[in-house]
This record gives sequence, structure tokens and C-alpha cells, in this order.
Amino acid sequence: MTQKEAIEYTINLARKATDNEIRPNPFVGAILVDQTGQIIGEGYHQKLGGTHAEVNAIEDALKKNKDLHETTLYVSLEPCSHFGKTPPCCDLIIQHGIKKVVIASLDPNPTVQSVEKLKQNNIEVEVMNDSEAISLNRRFFTQHLQQRPYFILKTASTIDGKIADRGKESKWISNEQSRQYVHTQLRANTDAILTSYKTIIQDKASLTIRMNNKPMIETNVIVIDKELSLLNEEFASLPIFYKRTNTKIYFISNKNRASSQSSGIDFIKGTFNEDGLIFTSVASSLLEKGLFTILTEGGNMINTSLIEQNFADELYWFIAPKILNDQHGISMIGKDKSISIQDTYNLDLIEINKIDQDVLLHYYFKSKHPH
Amino acid sequence: MTQKEAIEYTINLARKATDNEIRPNPFVGAILVDQTGQIIGEGYHQKLGGTHAEVNAIEDALKKNKDLHETTLYVSLEPCSHFGKTPPCCDLIIQHGIKKVVIASLDPNPTVQSVEKLKQNNIEVEVMNDSEAISLNRRFFTQHLQQRPYFILKTASTIDGKIADRGKESKWISNEQSRQYVHTQLRANTDAILTSYKTIIQDKASLTIRMNNKPMIETNVIVIDKELSLLNEEFASLPIFYKRTNTKIYFISNKNRASSQSSGIDFIKGTFNEDGLIFTSVASSLLEKGLFTILTEGGNMINTSLIEQNFADELYWFIAPKILNDQHGISMIGKDKSISIQDTYNLDLIEINKIDQDVLLHYYFKSKHPH
Repeated sequence: MTQKEAIEYTINLARKATDNEIRPNPFVGAILVDQTGQIIGEGYHQKLGGTHAEVNAIEDALKKNKDLHETTLYVSLEPCSHFGKTPPCCDLIIQHGIKKVVIASLDPNPTVQSVEKLKQNNIEVEVMNDSEAISLNRRFFTQHLQQRPYFILKTASTIDGKIADRGKESKWISNEQSRQYVHTQLRANTDAILTSYKTIIQDKASLTIRMNNKPMIETNVIVIDKELSLLNEEFASLPIFYKRTNTKIYFISNKNRASSQSSGIDFIKGTFNEDGLIFTSVASSLLEKGLFTILTEGGNMINTSLIEQNFADELYWFIAPKILNDQHGISMIGKDKSISIQDTYNLDLIEINKIDQDVLLHYYFKSKHPH
Repeated sequence: MTQKEAIEYTINLARKATDNEIRPNPFVGAILVDQTGQIIGEGYHQKLGGTHAEVNAIEDALKKNKDLHETTLYVSLEPCSHFGKTPPCCDLIIQHGIKKVVIASLDPNPTVQSVEKLKQNNIEVEVMNDSEAISLNRRFFTQHLQQRPYFILKTASTIDGKIADRGKESKWISNEQSRQYVHTQLRANTDAILTSYKTIIQDKASLTIRMNNKPMIETNVIVIDKELSLLNEEFASLPIFYKRTNTKIYFISNKNRASSQSSGIDFIKGTFNEDGLIFTSVASSLLEKGLFTILTEGGNMINTSLIEQNFADELYWFIAPKILNDQHGISMIGKDKSISIQDTYNLDLIEINKIDQDVLLHYYFKSKHPH
């Protein structure tokens, strides 16, 4: 087993968890390999608050009465060195006399300082900068390195990139299966849906998770609403204001408002300019409220602003087999600001999905635009 | 072998030919099946001017000394009944006493009247209306039923549907492999490239077929140029005016012009309105000049007009992993005319192709828009 194969093995183990089970923790997988190259223990981080991958791998080996001296631990992310929800993995590694640790990616959290500690205890340490291991934890890295939530843009358009006609009519562009995908794969795996008060009014949206034949599941909603217009009495009966038990509507406005009497409503103060919300102004508030991964289902403006402000991390784009052929239909992306073709925002194509006659393209935004 | 399986077999045979080998003839495949369900002869139309599929199937059976009485002939398109480049297949079928003929799709050419003739000769005839057989010959059916060339739209855009920035700068949006695909798969399989004089000037385009390490191949070019601006002396050295040996530039203008002294230039008179060319005005001229299948590589206007005038038959859309994010970049499609989201042009998704980081989506336009 080469080092690369061992790391790939840990990444595949890590992927056994779902984002929903571990968020905001990272995906981690670990294996113990003996001198003959045999895997004698394996584990992954299965659940927020649960044991770490390294612990699971070590326990797996011990259960089989394996001797851990002379073994190498491969782990997809740097082991923790601090007391969090569990004791530090670093100490456990030292305690069992493991000979060598190969780390596929470093933990961006500055309180994690395992490499030094392991070395001080005469453990051989090798740190890789494995792109797959880093990509595996894009959400986690973004939160820690950029101190902001991770934004996933979702849009459904015609071939000519329109999300609605001039009259703002839009129902429905994508097909039933594509809409199901949004519910089961996207809404269900994020902390909140971000939208604008206009979209909520226009679409009479409830923004819940509806799966075939299953009870509705609530989602948190973040509404950009500078003037808190949606709180006007005339909108009180909109579907978005259903009785919530474990979620909230977070209003981002330019007003100082304490939490509402209603437990289902909360407020975040943001800074606005002529283009709308400046997202850096709400980044830390969103993280404090536990909103780490955010799915956008707004109109043109939210996507455009997130891209321009380099806050766009992923794109899920559903393309319906239709052409509007009207340049003044509502576009999914684009503002009135000149950009040169040399300065496009660049993305990585991750996945192509055929959903009946719709096409779903999934992209990661590349390292940020210089502007 | 069911009837459906037999028809599918003939369609797969037909597809052994390339468009380039047979254009403007249709794709046709044929098999002879004996009473036990055994295929005793098969053939397809291989080459313009060459023998027809039925002839090849019958000859194949005769070579094996098979008795053709009591056999059924399955053919993907109605056999010919007139003397064209070859004698009528219909007569050959009668002459060999074939018992039954199953026709997957009727020939749209009114001079072809085989069904009656076969029946009069006591041959059992069954006519299907097989959608796959019809789709196989979309180009051929369009030419005959609509008396116009078949138009294949090609466009390469960013994710937000832009083919150039505000300054009309566009090189290059799609990647090298995508551009190779255009040369080897699209330009090489059509009779001409349709574009506008503006695109030729802007891109300094030569519109030839360039394949890796092979000599350049010429293509016919159709230029929409109402005022014949491109013939001004200042443009005489543009790459499009390379010395042609077996192709032409066809100028569509509103002027009456006889053929040029230069053998490489020809003229077609068209009718224009404020939106540009009215394509019906040039449909028969294009067919007369042998331009049956036309690939568009123009800017926004040609694609938009073809769609609006219901002349768009196919779309090859290359999507580069880039976002311009400027709503005033040049869009691939769209004019300033209000269209309701209920009245979109609808397409059939035919194929998805991943070309490195580009995505190629191939669509057929559906039966035409009611407007």
C-alpha cells in the first residue's frame, strides 16, 4: 500500500459520514498500518460529538489485540491536540506508542498544534498537502480560514439562463425530479436557506423540506430584508410564517432589533450599499448562530452579490430543456458592471447529473477572483 | 425477433454510414428475415450515389443462395419507386417475390409511392411511424417536408450564457478540445457554416476545418451581409478570403448580384426586416445551391432569429466553467421581445458530453412553437 493509496483509503472512510451527521465538524478517516503494510485498524468520524476517526481506528486495532508499536497512522486531517467534545487524539497516539503519523491535511484551527507535540514525543510525522483531503473539507476550511459560512448557490434556469420572464413569472422551470433533488440533497444538507423577502413574497414560498410521502421537515431561513418589509401585517399569513418548532427565520436588516417575542424569529444587523447586502458584515453573526453552510435560493441579486464578493463556494445549476429567447427575461446571474472576458470567475466542474430532461451541473468556485 | 427489434436492427445498420458519406440522402438500413426469424440478408445505404439499403440486403441474401420467397423485408425508410441515381428498389422487391415489407417510416418525397405499388403486386405492407426511424433522418425530413435547409446552432458560452464581454472580446471561452470537436464533428459534417459579416471581421475567422497535424480542409461559408460590406476593399485581406478550390462564400444580401468573377464567391438575395434576415426568403436558394445542412457560428442575432423563425433544428452548446457576472456581456441567445415563461421554446436533450472541464449539451428543438 503506497502512501497515496493509504490516504485515499482514509478519505473514502471519511466520506461514509454525511454532512448532516457531522456538521460543522470536518470529515475525517484514519487507518493503522503495520510493518507488513496490513491495515490493522480503521475508523471515521461518524457523528457530531461522537468519537474521532483516530480513536475509532485505534480501538478497532485494540479489539483485535494488535500491537500498535511499529505501526503507522494515516489520517485525512491533523489529529486534535485540545480538549473539545472529546479528549485530544494526539495524547492517545502518544500513549499507544504509535511509530509514525501521516497527515493528509493540516487543521486550520490554530488551537490544533499536533504536529509539534507528536514530534516532541519522538513520533515521526509526515504532513502532506493532499488536494483531495482539502477538497473533502471545503466547508470546514472555509469556515475556519475565512471566518464565514460556506455558501452553496442553487439556481434553475432555461438554456438561455433565465429564471423567470419579464413579468417575473417562473413556475416551474425545472422538472419535478430536479425539485425533489433540491429538497432531499440540498436543503436537507445545509443549515439554512438564504433568500430575499421579494422572492418569499413572489413565490409564496414555505422553504421546507418536502419528500415524497414523508412529513414536512423544517429548515432555517435567512431573509435579506433591509427594511423588514416582510414583517408588515399584510404578509403575516404567508406560508413562510408556519408554526416552527426547531427552526428560525433570521432577518438580515439594517436595523438594530433584539430577538423577537416569537421564538421563531431572530435578527441580524447587516451593512448595505447600493448593490444590497455586504456579506462580510454578517459573516460572524451567521457563524455565531450556528449557520455554517448556507444554500441560496434567491433571485439574481443574491447569487450575483455572493459571486462578486467572493463568497460563492459551490454552484448547483439545473438546466431545463427550454429557451425563453427574451434578453429581458430575469437572468440567474449578472449585474450591471463591466467585466472583461479575461477576468471571469473560474470554477471546477465536479459532477454532471442527468435528471430526466434536466441537466444538473455541480461546480466548485476556484480560489478567488483577484478583484 | 420482434418487429420492434427488427426495426431497431435496421436503424443500427443505417447508422453505420456517416452524414458526410450520404448527405443529402437519408440514412437507411434493411434486413431480410426468413420464416424462422433468421436474418438472411442485411444492408445499408453507404454512399451518395451508391446502392440502396434494400439492394444491399437482397444481394447479401442472394450471395448466400437464399430463397427470397416467404421472407419479410424490414426497412427503416420507405423503398424508392422512381428512377433516381439507381433503379427503383420497389421493382426489385416485386421481382424477387418478397412476401412482406415492413416500413419504419414513410419517405416525405411525394414522388415516392411504394406502398401502393407493392400492395398492387400482392405484397403485404406494414407501415410503422417509428419515432427513432424518423429522428434518424431529421435532416432529410426537414429538407423535404419544410423545403428548407436543416440548421444546427453551435454556441460556446460561459455558465451565465455570455459569448463575449461588453467590448465584444471573446477569445477563447471554450477549451482546446471543445474547439477541436467543432472542427472534426460539426464543421466536417455540414454543408456550410452560417455567420454574419460582423463576426468574420471581429474574429478574423477563416472558418476552415483544422484537425491536429492534418492539412486544412475548406468549408463553404454563408455570410449574412445585407449591404455586402465585407466586399469593401479594406477587408480583402481577411483570412476568410483564402484561395478556395472547391468551396464558396455565399453572400446573403438585399442586392441583386450575379455570380462574381471570382469562382469562390456567390450571391443569394434575401429579404430583411428590422430584425435582420427573414430566413424563408432564402430557403429555396440555399437548397438549390446544395446547402442542405447548415451549421451556425454567428453571434447572438443569427441564433435568436433562427429560433424565433422556427428554423432552429439542433443545438450544440459548449459550457465553459466560467462566470462573467456582467448582465451586459453579449448573450448567446435572446432578443428584445417579451416572451412568457409559458411560451418557451422546448427542446429534447439528446446527449451530454464532458470535454475536460467544458460540458457539451446536445439538443433537438421540438416540434415548433405555436407563435
